[in-house]
Amino acid sequence: MTGPTGQTGPTWPVGLEEAFAAYEQALMADDVPTLDRLFAPGPGTLRGDAAGLLVGHDAIAAFRGGRGGAPARRLVETRVQVLGEAHAVVVAVTELLRGGRGLQTQVWERQPSGWVVTAAHVTVAAPALDDRVWRVVGAPLVPTTTTDGEGLLAGEGVAVKDLYAVAGHRVGAGNPAWLAAASPEPDHAWAVARLLEEGADVTGIARTDELAYSLAGTNAHHGTPPNPRAPRRIPGGSSSGSASAVSLGHASIGLGTDTGGSIRVPAAYQGLCGLRTTHDAVPRTGLLPLAPSFDTVGWLARDTETLRRVGEVLLPTHDGPEIDPSALVTVPALLALAEPDVRAAVTGFAERHGADALDWRPEDLAGWLVAFQTLQAWEAWDSHGAWLEPRLDTLGADVRSRFERGARTTAGEADDARAVLAGARAEVDALVGDHVLVLPSASSVAPPLGPGLADRLQATRDATMRLTCLAGIAGLPALGVPLVTAAGLPAGACLVAARGRDLPLLRLAEELSSQTRNIAGPRP
Amino acid sequence: MTGPTGQTGPTWPVGLEEAFAAYEQALMADDVPTLDRLFAPGPGTLRGDAAGLLVGHDAIAAFRGGRGGAPARRLVETRVQVLGEAHAVVVAVTELLRGGRGLQTQVWERQPSGWVVTAAHVTVAAPALDDRVWRVVGAPLVPTTTTDGEGLLAGEGVAVKDLYAVAGHRVGAGNPAWLAAASPEPDHAWAVARLLEEGADVTGIARTDELAYSLAGTNAHHGTPPNPRAPRRIPGGSSSGSASAVSLGHASIGLGTDTGGSIRVPAAYQGLCGLRTTHDAVPRTGLLPLAPSFDTVGWLARDTETLRRVGEVLLPTHDGPEIDPSALVTVPALLALAEPDVRAAVTGFAERHGADALDWRPEDLAGWLVAFQTLQAWEAWDSHGAWLEPRLDTLGADVRSRFERGARTTAGEADDARAVLAGARAEVDALVGDHVLVLPSASSVAPPLGPGLADRLQATRDATMRLTCLAGIAGLPALGVPLVTAAGLPAGACLVAARGRDLPLLRLAEELSSQTRNIAGPRP
Repeated sequence: MTGPTGQTGPTWPVGLEEAFAAYEQALMADDVPTLDRLFAPGPGTLRGDAAGLLVGHDAIAAFRGGRGGAPARRLVETRVQVLGEAHAVVVAVTELLRGGRGLQTQVWERQPSGWVVTAAHVTVAAPALDDRVWRVVGAPLVPTTTTDGEGLLAGEGVAVKDLYAVAGHRVGAGNPAWLAAASPEPDHAWAVARLLEEGADVTGIARTDELAYSLAGTNAHHGTPPNPRAPRRIPGGSSSGSASAVSLGHASIGLGTDTGGSIRVPAAYQGLCGLRTTHDAVPRTGLLPLAPSFDTVGWLARDTETLRRVGEVLLPTHDGPEIDPSALVTVPALLALAEPDVRAAVTGFAERHGADALDWRPEDLAGWLVAFQTLQAWEAWDSHGAWLEPRLDTLGADVRSRFERGARTTAGEADDARAVLAGARAEVDALVGDHVLVLPSASSVAPPLGPGLADRLQATRDATMRLTCLAGIAGLPALGVPLVTAAGLPAGACLVAARGRDLPLLRLAEELSSQTRNIAGPRP
Repeated sequence: MTGPTGQTGPTWPVGLEEAFAAYEQALMADDVPTLDRLFAPGPGTLRGDAAGLLVGHDAIAAFRGGRGGAPARRLVETRVQVLGEAHAVVVAVTELLRGGRGLQTQVWERQPSGWVVTAAHVTVAAPALDDRVWRVVGAPLVPTTTTDGEGLLAGEGVAVKDLYAVAGHRVGAGNPAWLAAASPEPDHAWAVARLLEEGADVTGIARTDELAYSLAGTNAHHGTPPNPRAPRRIPGGSSSGSASAVSLGHASIGLGTDTGGSIRVPAAYQGLCGLRTTHDAVPRTGLLPLAPSFDTVGWLARDTETLRRVGEVLLPTHDGPEIDPSALVTVPALLALAEPDVRAAVTGFAERHGADALDWRPEDLAGWLVAFQTLQAWEAWDSHGAWLEPRLDTLGADVRSRFERGARTTAGEADDARAVLAGARAEVDALVGDHVLVLPSASSVAPPLGPGLADRLQATRDATMRLTCLAGIAGLPALGVPLVTAAGLPAGACLVAARGRDLPLLRLAEELSSQTRNIAGPRP
């Protein structure tokens, strides 16, 4: 250890060196009680790292109790600054046994019980890649196919959901057995090729929930991508890796899919913009299906301008009229399906833009959702059942249960569901008309990670899908814009328009964004 | 901004909020004089981030003057702790315009001139990949070809220097024009295939100096990989990305090449183990050549045990005797070629292991080095001149000058060089015999980055190559083990044995490592 040096005092205050050594020893032994004792009690104690800031002794203790120890390390250099009678800061450079160096800053306070840490900041060397977000990443992985540096998307980097073909790479679909059985794709998926033709690079192939059959982003095999805007909460899925990559600034465009909300939900949870396109408006060539009656190409971005430019590349030209902000409407009965914090944020957004309220009662909504989920399960099993049947044990429990539902669904039940959905579709079409429906993108903010998550996810999934299934049933474009709840958490408003009006909807979102920071940025 | 809260005081001390705001404003404006003024003067002021710890106001000011501004950001959450009368800590969560969140801890002191920062710790979201280290990386990029989880290298991850063929990927050779013209490789290079057959995964394709023609690691196109053990110093090359990947803990094995020192030099600069193999002992199939008379397969690891296991996979079985530590010898006239700090570290290593001194005078060494560099340049141009001639302007200045030397070299000069080298080889062979020669791996510690680097690199290159050329000339195996100078910087001892004795040399290094922490770890 380098001898202590400091600006305001060259020596350790009495007892601090011993406390510092005791902390280091307890950290290496994962001696949680000692670590807890050496952190100051109370709600003001702080501990931060790249994953976020923990506030309060209880939150820090809970984190420490759950992490299973810190990486083995030794101290390379230690510096002390004495701050008056009762405080000191210790900055230490560490060297990790697994490679790389770390940095740690601790603010210590002399309390009657001895020296304790009131604030700590920890940095460790980043891994080669964050394998919760990415399966493979390059600088770039696939360069644009333009040679002149031009194109509507020049300079953009795309995180491609691991369901799209990227030539020379396998499709992994979020499941290791699927990946192991896959061969490199000969061609790019249609959407990937179009983005490359317009100047974008493919940054990498991003994680997805298994076969896209989840809204959570908690892949059982590869871990849960981080949600930087809402630390220690789920990222949303199934386009989870694409969304986190955009949120983290790893990519500017997240290419994903949306069958039952897989663009809109991660956009809402992470404070991003996202578009689920009109069903069949963008070719799905080279895209692994989930439920083809509902599957759509979609994408995420940090701003509506980028979101719109991607639309100009992927969507057919629209000849119809533009959409005026006066087309915005809300349905109070649908707003009521969201948690109060999300409802308030979406209501506030609608009011700021002068949206009228439509008196529509979704009396059959529960039945529609059952029909949607029934047909989705039936089609998912139709898509993948033959391959999955002997491999169901390779799936995470939640995704497996949904495929098993598909296996149990009969053709007759699927036909019944189609009949219900035909009626629903007519009703939703009539409701939307020339309006733009403003809905909550998800029923709640991102659920927190931690004990009881599986139960929370099931409840959240059902509540959110009552809202997201409407665009799915009717094949409508749905554009998520970021909001913030009163507590500062990301939420989303979803703008739903008639089929084929994707481009006017993108331009509307851009116009609204220019009117209020609530769309471009996450804070009021 | 969240209202200030703190453990020891709920409000900002007088004047601190204004100072904090002034700092934030100056940071966004890259107003270096104001930032310098707001950091405490003197040698004890600290500023750290993932790249390392800066100590002293001058070092911090120099860093700030050279970086060209901090990324645009806004404050999401700010917490204050008051530490007695004259100190406070401010912890802030930031949100970067480019995506991702950051964390910043500042210790402030009230001085007569006002509030100033005495210690700062900054974290920003890591990029998708460190493109100074990697061209492409996966989780893994290529999985082992074993199916049973077995193999001598099971669980290891390999950083493959971007000169080796990885099936399905292009070879980039550190030069963007080369990469752009390349096609995906149909097969793995021999060495890559062997590693995959023994349980290792390919983690990714690591950066190299252009066409491996440098010892610095300062690629003109892709930046300089970090040297975590010696921050703000060069990593060494040309196997720079492979070495930094191992040093950072991104991979456990760095596959590289060594023509004139490209394994030994980065090993020394970064505190790693590395082996340059006997010339022609490991097939170079699928490896881009530089100078085939000297090119060898080599690899790096953080410990001698891993280094030896890779040798057992790649090297032919050795039937000769083991090497006893009593075979170690030094040549004082060669030790004298190193800088005093490195010489002292290598001498100390030799003395601890009881090495005898051989009285050998390298009287022709300068001429040997000229002959080595002449033939290297001639062969390099022979390998790549036809392709490079119309593309010399795609090369960095230093690499270009060496290829241009090759272009000017005549066949007659190459023949003359070969004659000199034949004599040199006989003399080196006689010197080494059954001994293991202990040399400095490089003549100095890693040169610091910063103004004047190009001149420092040229001087360092020539001084180091006087040492490294000996194994190159005679095609001998040379194993670098990490040492530490008195100032705490990495250095290396290079163990040179007779041709074909690679495996006994690896086992010797492992034995020596078990005798002293100086080999396995970097500190005495």
